[in-house]
Amino acid sequence: MCGIFGIFGHEEAANLTYLGLHALQHRGQESAGIVSSDGQKLHAHREMGLVGEAFSAEKLAKLSGRAAIGQVRYSTAGASKLENAQPFMVEYVGGGLAIAHNGNLVNAERLRRELEEKGAIFQSDSDTEAIIHLTAHSRAASLEEKIADALRRAQGAYSLLFLSEKQLIAVRDSYGFRPLVLGRLKNAYVLASETTALDLIEAELIREIEPGELVVIDKAGLRSSHPFPPTRLGRCIFEHVYFAKPDSMLFGLSVYEVRKKLGMQLAREHPATADLVTAVPDSGVPAAIGYAQVSGIPYDVGLIRSHYVGRTFIEPQQSIRHFGVKLKLSAVRQVLKGKRVVVVDDSIVRGTTSRKIVKMIKAAGASEVHLRISSPPTRWPCYYGIDTPSRQELIASNHSVEEIARYVTADSLGYLSMEGLGEAVQDKSASTFCNACFSGNYLTENFLTKTLSPPETPERSRVVSA
Amino acid sequence: MCGIFGIFGHEEAANLTYLGLHALQHRGQESAGIVSSDGQKLHAHREMGLVGEAFSAEKLAKLSGRAAIGQVRYSTAGASKLENAQPFMVEYVGGGLAIAHNGNLVNAERLRRELEEKGAIFQSDSDTEAIIHLTAHSRAASLEEKIADALRRAQGAYSLLFLSEKQLIAVRDSYGFRPLVLGRLKNAYVLASETTALDLIEAELIREIEPGELVVIDKAGLRSSHPFPPTRLGRCIFEHVYFAKPDSMLFGLSVYEVRKKLGMQLAREHPATADLVTAVPDSGVPAAIGYAQVSGIPYDVGLIRSHYVGRTFIEPQQSIRHFGVKLKLSAVRQVLKGKRVVVVDDSIVRGTTSRKIVKMIKAAGASEVHLRISSPPTRWPCYYGIDTPSRQELIASNHSVEEIARYVTADSLGYLSMEGLGEAVQDKSASTFCNACFSGNYLTENFLTKTLSPPETPERSRVVSA
Amino acid sequence: MCGIFGIFGHEEAANLTYLGLHALQHRGQESAGIVSSDGQKLHAHREMGLVGEAFSAEKLAKLSGRAAIGQVRYSTAGASKLENAQPFMVEYVGGGLAIAHNGNLVNAERLRRELEEKGAIFQSDSDTEAIIHLTAHSRAASLEEKIADALRRAQGAYSLLFLSEKQLIAVRDSYGFRPLVLGRLKNAYVLASETTALDLIEAELIREIEPGELVVIDKAGLRSSHPFPPTRLGRCIFEHVYFAKPDSMLFGLSVYEVRKKLGMQLAREHPATADLVTAVPDSGVPAAIGYAQVSGIPYDVGLIRSHYVGRTFIEPQQSIRHFGVKLKLSAVRQVLKGKRVVVVDDSIVRGTTSRKIVKMIKAAGASEVHLRISSPPTRWPCYYGIDTPSRQELIASNHSVEEIARYVTADSLGYLSMEGLGEAVQDKSASTFCNACFSGNYLTENFLTKTLSPPETPERSRVVSA
Amino acid sequence: MCGIFGIFGHEEAANLTYLGLHALQHRGQESAGIVSSDGQKLHAHREMGLVGEAFSAEKLAKLSGRAAIGQVRYSTAGASKLENAQPFMVEYVGGGLAIAHNGNLVNAERLRRELEEKGAIFQSDSDTEAIIHLTAHSRAASLEEKIADALRRAQGAYSLLFLSEKQLIAVRDSYGFRPLVLGRLKNAYVLASETTALDLIEAELIREIEPGELVVIDKAGLRSSHPFPPTRLGRCIFEHVYFAKPDSMLFGLSVYEVRKKLGMQLAREHPATADLVTAVPDSGVPAAIGYAQVSGIPYDVGLIRSHYVGRTFIEPQQSIRHFGVKLKLSAVRQVLKGKRVVVVDDSIVRGTTSRKIVKMIKAAGASEVHLRISSPPTRWPCYYGIDTPSRQELIASNHSVEEIARYVTADSLGYLSMEGLGEAVQDKSASTFCNACFSGNYLTENFLTKTLSPPETPERSRVVSA
Repeated sequence: MCGIFGIFGHEEAANLTYLGLHALQHRGQESAGIVSSDGQKLHAHREMGLVGEAFSAEKLAKLSGRAAIGQVRYSTAGASKLENAQPFMVEYVGGGLAIAHNGNLVNAERLRRELEEKGAIFQSDSDTEAIIHLTAHSRAASLEEKIADALRRAQGAYSLLFLSEKQLIAVRDSYGFRPLVLGRLKNAYVLASETTALDLIEAELIREIEPGELVVIDKAGLRSSHPFPPTRLGRCIFEHVYFAKPDSMLFGLSVYEVRKKLGMQLAREHPATADLVTAVPDSGVPAAIGYAQVSGIPYDVGLIRSHYVGRTFIEPQQSIRHFGVKLKLSAVRQVLKGKRVVVVDDSIVRGTTSRKIVKMIKAAGASEVHLRISSPPTRWPCYYGIDTPSRQELIASNHSVEEIARYVTADSLGYLSMEGLGEAVQDKSASTFCNACFSGNYLTENFLTKTLSPPETPERSRVVSA
Repeated sequence: MCGIFGIFGHEEAANLTYLGLHALQHRGQESAGIVSSDGQKLHAHREMGLVGEAFSAEKLAKLSGRAAIGQVRYSTAGASKLENAQPFMVEYVGGGLAIAHNGNLVNAERLRRELEEKGAIFQSDSDTEAIIHLTAHSRAASLEEKIADALRRAQGAYSLLFLSEKQLIAVRDSYGFRPLVLGRLKNAYVLASETTALDLIEAELIREIEPGELVVIDKAGLRSSHPFPPTRLGRCIFEHVYFAKPDSMLFGLSVYEVRKKLGMQLAREHPATADLVTAVPDSGVPAAIGYAQVSGIPYDVGLIRSHYVGRTFIEPQQSIRHFGVKLKLSAVRQVLKGKRVVVVDDSIVRGTTSRKIVKMIKAAGASEVHLRISSPPTRWPCYYGIDTPSRQELIASNHSVEEIARYVTADSLGYLSMEGLGEAVQDKSASTFCNACFSGNYLTENFLTKTLSPPETPERSRVVSA
Repeated sequence: MCGIFGIFGHEEAANLTYLGLHALQHRGQESAGIVSSDGQKLHAHREMGLVGEAFSAEKLAKLSGRAAIGQVRYSTAGASKLENAQPFMVEYVGGGLAIAHNGNLVNAERLRRELEEKGAIFQSDSDTEAIIHLTAHSRAASLEEKIADALRRAQGAYSLLFLSEKQLIAVRDSYGFRPLVLGRLKNAYVLASETTALDLIEAELIREIEPGELVVIDKAGLRSSHPFPPTRLGRCIFEHVYFAKPDSMLFGLSVYEVRKKLGMQLAREHPATADLVTAVPDSGVPAAIGYAQVSGIPYDVGLIRSHYVGRTFIEPQQSIRHFGVKLKLSAVRQVLKGKRVVVVDDSIVRGTTSRKIVKMIKAAGASEVHLRISSPPTRWPCYYGIDTPSRQELIASNHSVEEIARYVTADSLGYLSMEGLGEAVQDKSASTFCNACFSGNYLTENFLTKTLSPPETPERSRVVSA
Repeated sequence: MCGIFGIFGHEEAANLTYLGLHALQHRGQESAGIVSSDGQKLHAHREMGLVGEAFSAEKLAKLSGRAAIGQVRYSTAGASKLENAQPFMVEYVGGGLAIAHNGNLVNAERLRRELEEKGAIFQSDSDTEAIIHLTAHSRAASLEEKIADALRRAQGAYSLLFLSEKQLIAVRDSYGFRPLVLGRLKNAYVLASETTALDLIEAELIREIEPGELVVIDKAGLRSSHPFPPTRLGRCIFEHVYFAKPDSMLFGLSVYEVRKKLGMQLAREHPATADLVTAVPDSGVPAAIGYAQVSGIPYDVGLIRSHYVGRTFIEPQQSIRHFGVKLKLSAVRQVLKGKRVVVVDDSIVRGTTSRKIVKMIKAAGASEVHLRISSPPTRWPCYYGIDTPSRQELIASNHSVEEIARYVTADSLGYLSMEGLGEAVQDKSASTFCNACFSGNYLTENFLTKTLSPPETPERSRVVSA
């Protein structure tokens, strides 16, 4: 996952991009980068680490000009290196070009192979580099046509920002997998993955960039086109479930309100007899509050999250025990002791963390732990930009809910149904969202080598007593 | 403020101290340090920054031995330098000696002057250095007697850990201002500012170190004495209100439960007609939940706290606007829009942050903002270890509640009463707590040059309509 | 300028490359990089700074495999950035490929334009990237043929090392501008810019890579071919005058001996009546010794060079004076006082440094300063890899020797003649060397935009009395 | 060893101290520090590393005021830590006080023990801390009297700079072991270990601080006193032999000229039949030139020193061979091949480096290697501030010259005689110098625990054929 931000027409373009990236930091903590344009030339700085670590006042000052784009990138194992940090910046036949990408192409390997056969060289592991090659190879006349040309060949998820010396171009794939919004700050146009970045810099939200839309911003103003064949919508449901920041408006809905409704619906689908409802912080909090309101069981804080577990914290090597989640969460003994506890989390991936949390709550004295998950079982890997493990590692793809409950040592376990999920996002049939991680119904063909077994009939999610 | 941790009799003494300090990180983010003893020699490492930044696996590995003490130190303006980082380690006539201190001496300047007159030299700004000098100057035979000797001359707040080649010594002043607990991990004794550190390393809580107690731990085991003249108790009420971690047991009470009760009482004292209750995260959350439960007004999350504003984040210099609290908190527009909102915070210091928060909530669309503070007005500086500004800067020391409400632009403002506060800590007369920050009733004479005007009659805290 | 090193067939390939680069550090201090091959995969690390700063034991340990290439790069203004650090490493249709380059292409911009027109993208400023593109675009069957194909289109100076998963390939342009030698260490083949790198790792010198030769080293051993059309030789004379390390054998001659002979010839061409001969250290020392031996004037050390002026040393901003060369050189007053001094340096570029040195020697009490330069006037920029300024900045390209002497405040100034230079490198007609920097006789057409005025008739170099 | 610098009365005091320390960098590379006074308050910065690494423009800017002192410190094993970096800065009864020390007290341990018995605490390993304690303990009225009082109790070598808010005080012990000179820059007084620091900042040399002199500089100007009982002189001969920078005037003599004379005398005492004279760079160069001039054997550069072996260069761990001196020196094969070579070095410590150098020269093809040392055999450790190993490790303290020659594999070995050494420093009887490292005639009693066997009759230094 990544967060992207762009601005055109403001004298503090790089400074505002820096702030905008800070607001999007939850979307990626591995690396941060900004490319600015002074109208004649692009200027770049990329570095590993958080936005606040990657940029100093001195480095920002070098990023001159009234237009800029930036990216924060998520840390995925093995590829954490500066070569992969974005925005990429290249020179091509048209001059300088920078690109910031949120999403993932499913035909990246095929494109790469084809491009290499034509003589292209790749300096990163990233699928984004293929997009730049395709753009540079296009015979179309203008940059926007080249980009459209290139992206007609790309399949998968992309919200993209391009910066040339003279233009800022924003594109979103026709499925609309990843978010991208347009705002205005005085005379400047602003683009961001989420509205929280607009709010921070006090920019006004104009609208979403539409799925399949290509927007060009330059001195002449803003013009929009829809150069791609239309498809059904496939907006990522998991952005609402987990990924986006709760204060953002996403796909027209309040993330916070959606999450609270997920919890409300969860309370209806999987009630529990309990003394209190608590959340796995921070992502589980809105759903837990919703669960508490519908169930009438009081909400309380049974788990505290530490603010200080960053990238630099390393467990002592010699140590016999593995501390893991304990370094991040601590249980409030006096709240939990002797209580029947409903714990609300957004999802279960491998099950190992959930198991540790349930055990921690029991060690703090809870008499019963009822785990409630505000989404259906995660059974399928995402090929559209969320970092999920393979089917083998996803506990729900090869275990029943009963088995999972037993593994995580919960007294009961309830997952939200697909219907309940659809309800919360005001799309019962879920025909405008991608829910492949739950259903296996991928919206695109997949050409990645990470092989994919055919979707099994997903068993109905239900409460089980362990 | 600071957090201290010590352990005696464990082969992973430094590693466990590192983990214990991580659990106490909320008590100080400026610097971190550990001194270990291998029985013959002390080994030290101190560095600016968070625990995870200050120590690498390599640095920890050099801290050999079965005993260690550590400290995390709070950043106070002007004195943020390595020379002040603790534990201090010195050589004196008895060999090596390290000290970690939580608290503040009120006669530090006088002691310093006296010591300097005898020829002592000081390398730090810290009052802790005076304690070491006094200890080294004592003619008493044993280290524990030297320490007792020294501390009989010290006035003020101190929870202290001393480490020599052979002994770990813990002391708490007779007022019991600052917390200190004793635990056990297998055959090792553990000491920590708060129980959350014991919980992390899975040590068992034995008891608090008593006010006025001196505990010596060495090969022969643990022995306790009470070498100081008894006084009334003066446990710091502000630890419960704000400073301690909610999952800790403090002075025998659950911090979380106390804070929730403060909010419950606040709802009784200062009810409001409103649509929702929200907290200033994270410290205001338990009180907000308590307020919601008593008032029947639903609790919701109207403000989100960023996890990524650390020491390295610098606002762009050039920028016209000052972002301040906006970099740390963001408002959830959909929750707040058109609502009458009760906002619960633990205290108001200068009023500037509260003003920004109220404005942020109104900008997000709230129709009314009713600010509720889960403690009485903070009118007096603390001389016992909490970093508060001078009377001039404390808004409540020279403004009425009405004036404060107007300044922070709240529609109403209510502070908890002293009685309500006493209720929550099960000490109505508050005779076992120090509440000088609210009442001006200091428990010790004060010799600091930061001059102190005589306590005025505090006006009754009440709700006012602005 | 750059230094390159490669090794094939040694279990400590990366470690030896690290040592070899250290020996070549004088050829470039900006950045250092190593790429190794473990037979299946390439591993890379590049960083700004000296070899010793760029690599830690940990980073070296990750560069596994029995083959490696490395590069040290020179700092040229404006382009000092990690993106330009070498070896470059890319993926292309044939797999992984790394390249280390010493030299400069004169048709780089034209190649770049042509490649961009075909859709190529460039991520660095470097001409080396064009070579990789050409190689990747070639339709030839094998890597060596692709490389030959590519280089047939490249014009200018190049000594190159390529590393694929299975092969190490070395190439030198037909002019032989830049050096490259082949050695053996047990069963491993070693390649290096200079013999000093072979000496350090105790490898045996086999021979030079011949101008126009392409050498492939793999499991099958070493094979050589000459795939490029023959040209006249154009070995860089300036390597002998200034750039190479004195203990190296270069183009079959000892650098030290050549420099000493330059000084001897200089004494014959431009004698002086003086009390002592001194050098501008370190590059002027051998010529000064040669001058002293022929002239019979005693050699002494009148200028001391500081070992501690590195990249990090910054002059205080506030300071009124500019210290410049004084931070690097200091005059030995007792040696110079009251003396008539011959100062030998290798060349004069802008004249500003020479002026400061002459003034420093006079300030130390010298009664006369006779500046002797062990090469002809530097009048033309180098397009083949030496970093020289434009004609406008080269003092000798638009000033007479008399004028230069006056500017640098020397009592007399003498440059070595072209004939004398030829003598020292045993090539009187200089038909096997490139001396374009002195003569303007460039051996290739030049397509660079840095425009070039037609060579004027160089005035005879002679002694002048100022 | 250390270098110290101070200035009083210049608006760029810290900047000039930074430059002065850079000029003294050869005297210590471990740490650098500056303390300035703005008249009211002292400001300090100390850091590990070279001057250029320890200070940034930003850090220098914080060191405000018109007076400053600084120190560069030498790296001695085991004690390389920030706590030992100087200048030390403390608060004592008289206010702030900083101290920079070059030298070593022989009664440091005894003083420390006595001070600890009086209650003093020590935070460093350094003997300098004892001087501050003694100063702070003194009952004398003024700072200068306190310092005199303190130093009457100190035995050993010290050149000291003290800085208070109002005064800069310089002291040199009565033996005059370590150098210290006084200069003037406009209206400012400057103090420095060596004249090279005055030269860099273009200050004028006034005179040496006399042995036993105490100089106070303040608003009222400069006043001098001699508060210590007179002793014989004991100026360190090894400063001239090896330690000082050749362009400095030291104890009234030119270091360069002394070294050259050492080489001249060495040629008379230990002639050789040889083809060339070469030096172990850089310290051996002046003596080698002197040897060449007297012997008539040509001087040439047979060994090249690398500029790039700094603190960060680490030999690869895995490597089978140990490179050691080869990383620093390389042999010029064409100069040495087939030649009978005289190699001049300043001293032999353990013999291991000399052995490697002789072997390197032979490996480069020399037919004979005649090692000449420009000082007598180093047989005794220095207790006055030069870092020498114990007697056990000094090869000359337990081996004959024949044995040493054999060990270092030289064809002959000759050490300069004590008489020859005296000649060069214009003190035949050497009654004004300390030569304890050669003779064992220590000028003070020694109380250090590093035990010292009684001086044996030193065997006459002479040439031997191996």
